[in-house]
Amino acid sequence: MDHFRQAGLRARKEELERAARFGADHVFLFTGGLGDGERGLVAARRRAEDHIGRLLELARRVGVKLALEPLHPMLAGDRTVITSLTSANDLCDALGHGIGVVVDVYHVWWDERLEAEIMRAGRSGRLLGFHVNDWLLPTRHLLTDRGMMGDGIIDLKGIEVMMRRAGFVGGLEVEIFSTNWWARDPGEVMEIAISRCREIFGGPSHASYLSRVLDSAMTLRITAA
Amino acid sequence: MDHFRQAGLRARKEELERAARFGADHVFLFTGGLGDGERGLVAARRRAEDHIGRLLELARRVGVKLALEPLHPMLAGDRTVITSLTSANDLCDALGHGIGVVVDVYHVWWDERLEAEIMRAGRSGRLLGFHVNDWLLPTRHLLTDRGMMGDGIIDLKGIEVMMRRAGFVGGLEVEIFSTNWWARDPGEVMEIAISRCREIFGGPSHASYLSRVLDSAMTLRITAA
Repeated sequence: MDHFRQAGLRARKEELERAARFGADHVFLFTGGLGDGERGLVAARRRAEDHIGRLLELARRVGVKLALEPLHPMLAGDRTVITSLTSANDLCDALGHGIGVVVDVYHVWWDERLEAEIMRAGRSGRLLGFHVNDWLLPTRHLLTDRGMMGDGIIDLKGIEVMMRRAGFVGGLEVEIFSTNWWARDPGEVMEIAISRCREIFGGPSHASYLSRVLDSAMTLRITAA
Repeated sequence: MDHFRQAGLRARKEELERAARFGADHVFLFTGGLGDGERGLVAARRRAEDHIGRLLELARRVGVKLALEPLHPMLAGDRTVITSLTSANDLCDALGHGIGVVVDVYHVWWDERLEAEIMRAGRSGRLLGFHVNDWLLPTRHLLTDRGMMGDGIIDLKGIEVMMRRAGFVGGLEVEIFSTNWWARDPGEVMEIAISRCREIFGGPSHASYLSRVLDSAMTLRITAA
């Protein structure tokens, strides 16, 4: 292993240890895309799997899970090489315990394998999170034009039912990367998000939420009171 | 069947008959997306399959093949409900002879199933066309920011090798939906496209091409002389 990779692994190890000190259940892992000038996802995927395997050993040692979030195929190449729940499940199967998946409706709603792969993840006890938002028509930007739940075309209730049937008991996390919503009053955005969640998912009746601002993204976590 | 659908089928029948008079090998078929206010791709996919089955009967009667072109998942919802070669192959298997697929690298390059599904289509003798272009980083628009071959990150030669191994003997079709390229001199665009094809695919040494302007899209067909 070259110096660069060793330094990278050392930095990741410190992050995992910090997460363990915070009592985190899991840490998100994104593979990044292709290397500089690289073409061909097959090699990039193989390399990502090697790296994830090494990180998983570190994560197990400190007692934190790794969470894979497959991203939309339009983000293949620059953001990730894992573009489907199938790939994420395959990888988890290959690597064993201590790694799971987060389902973000935005990235996977189009996939004809969606229900089967959510069930598969549930059977293996690896559903670690559930992100909601919506797909707008038209979508004006690949990264920053997500919609508020109810403003787009994703069958949100249908996907939540799949998640519940598959055994997911966690809360909904609202994750709306959107220059439109970022420009609005955060309190108002939260109220709208909570009210839409109640309309669409039928609860919770008393919502508490956790808001985070990450890379100018607004994330709300809505949990039953 | 309601009046609207009967009128729609009649119009499609006329188009198929016209294509047969022109001696066309195949006619492209796009499913469109969700209905007005509809959510849930499962029902939309079932409906699309019913319609395609009915169109296929008409197409067989006039002796023209139907060509399914799966589109990128970012176009699910408004342009198509068939978002992978797997779905297209499944549909062809279910419907029998007289229907095939067109592979456009832009729509399928990200798919971990790509090679297996190209081989599967080849074994069934249903590879009807091959479109080339490139995926730009960053991509600024979901519809009109495709790249010239070589300017992006798709492993074009790798995919062409898959197509050839799968038995595809047809030409390359250059299809670049791009406000950038549309704004340039068409003759110059063709010269660049042909030269890039030679660099990347290693031939043909004497190219002839057919240019079409469809919905302000420029398509070049490059075939060996």
